Amino acid sequence: MTERPPADTDTGPGTSARRRGRPKRAESADTRDRILTAARDEFSERGYEKTSVRGIAKAAGVDSALVHHYFGTKEQVFEAAITQSFGPALQAPKAIEEGPLDGVGERLARFFFGVWENPATRAPLLAIVRSAVTNETAAAVFRRIVATQVLRRIAVRLELPDAELRAELAAAQLVGTAILRYVIKVEPLASADPEQIIARLAPVVQGHLTDP
Amino acid sequence: MTERPPADTDTGPGTSARRRGRPKRAESADTRDRILTAARDEFSERGYEKTSVRGIAKAAGVDSALVHHYFGTKEQVFEAAITQSFGPALQAPKAIEEGPLDGVGERLARFFFGVWENPATRAPLLAIVRSAVTNETAAAVFRRIVATQVLRRIAVRLELPDAELRAELAAAQLVGTAILRYVIKVEPLASADPEQIIARLAPVVQGHLTDP
Repeated sequence: MTERPPADTDTGPGTSARRRGRPKRAESADTRDRILTAARDEFSERGYEKTSVRGIAKAAGVDSALVHHYFGTKEQVFEAAITQSFGPALQAPKAIEEGPLDGVGERLARFFFGVWENPATRAPLLAIVRSAVTNETAAAVFRRIVATQVLRRIAVRLELPDAELRAELAAAQLVGTAILRYVIKVEPLASADPEQIIARLAPVVQGHLTDP
Repeated sequence: MTERPPADTDTGPGTSARRRGRPKRAESADTRDRILTAARDEFSERGYEKTSVRGIAKAAGVDSALVHHYFGTKEQVFEAAITQSFGPALQAPKAIEEGPLDGVGERLARFFFGVWENPATRAPLLAIVRSAVTNETAAAVFRRIVATQVLRRIAVRLELPDAELRAELAAAQLVGTAILRYVIKVEPLASADPEQIIARLAPVVQGHLTDP
């Protein structure tokens, strides 16, 4: 059975949300989460271009109109799915905020590989990277989220005139390593101990961010 | 009119190659090039998965059997197309061989961005990166070519026990920067002067390759 979008009139808290009335708050949050999980899986498996709102709705067991109701267009569903998948990675600025600036390279590298080494957080990241590399719309969404939520927040802390470029070149070292290790799987990098990689990259990230 | 694969018997140098006889050497090289160009365009536009030997043959105006005759399977056509597209990038080891080891970081960074800044060499590189990031077979072909033709040849020159890992982490900095600049187009990196980027990355690449 597929759920239909909630009607615009509230039929009161006692009414079953499975009929036409507005879902109760908890049930509404459940449905939203179910759609988001389905969206993430669909985007992961099929990539941005081949994923449709209809397919997401089907996987979540709801009506397409309900997906539009909660999220809007396919691009907006993708943005919501990225933001959710990126949840752990979006904590990166905290890694820079907590602690002294001269240990930031190691904290960021350790944080970054912690997210990538964990299979549960790696899968959605891989899906996002694949979509962003192959589709312009997905790239734009990815760019907006990474720029506003990660890079600029790191840059602000640096208080240097070229802070954003510094943050991006540091990110390039980390992202490039992730692509060669987890996507292209070049050896010996793909099998190297994460601690060895962190030890090599921490001073590079630190240098990009704080060297005069 | 589509060309058919050459028969196994040579009907002599005077016979028209457009009929059943083996093509003359020059014509055969032309056909091979035409197939390779068509393959590169098809892989660029459609990505690895959606490209077929039949589609490549059609674009080149030849019979599918002729594509198989010259290259073998779709994976082998892809490998040949990569090797051709990668022609300029495969010169990277020369950038390390020509000149002293202490200037290698700058030579490699300058060489790398020279290839990426040139629209003619950038387009096929983008196509390869997109295919390799989204398809396992394409990733395997890419990995084999980059590992054997670029990374290992750089590593040999270094004469250090962890030379391959060093070459890969240096490559990660360059590849990551290319992805953020040319694919995701994050600002200010996307619009930065290439000379500024080279100046920032040369010491990082140098450090990865030769720091104790």
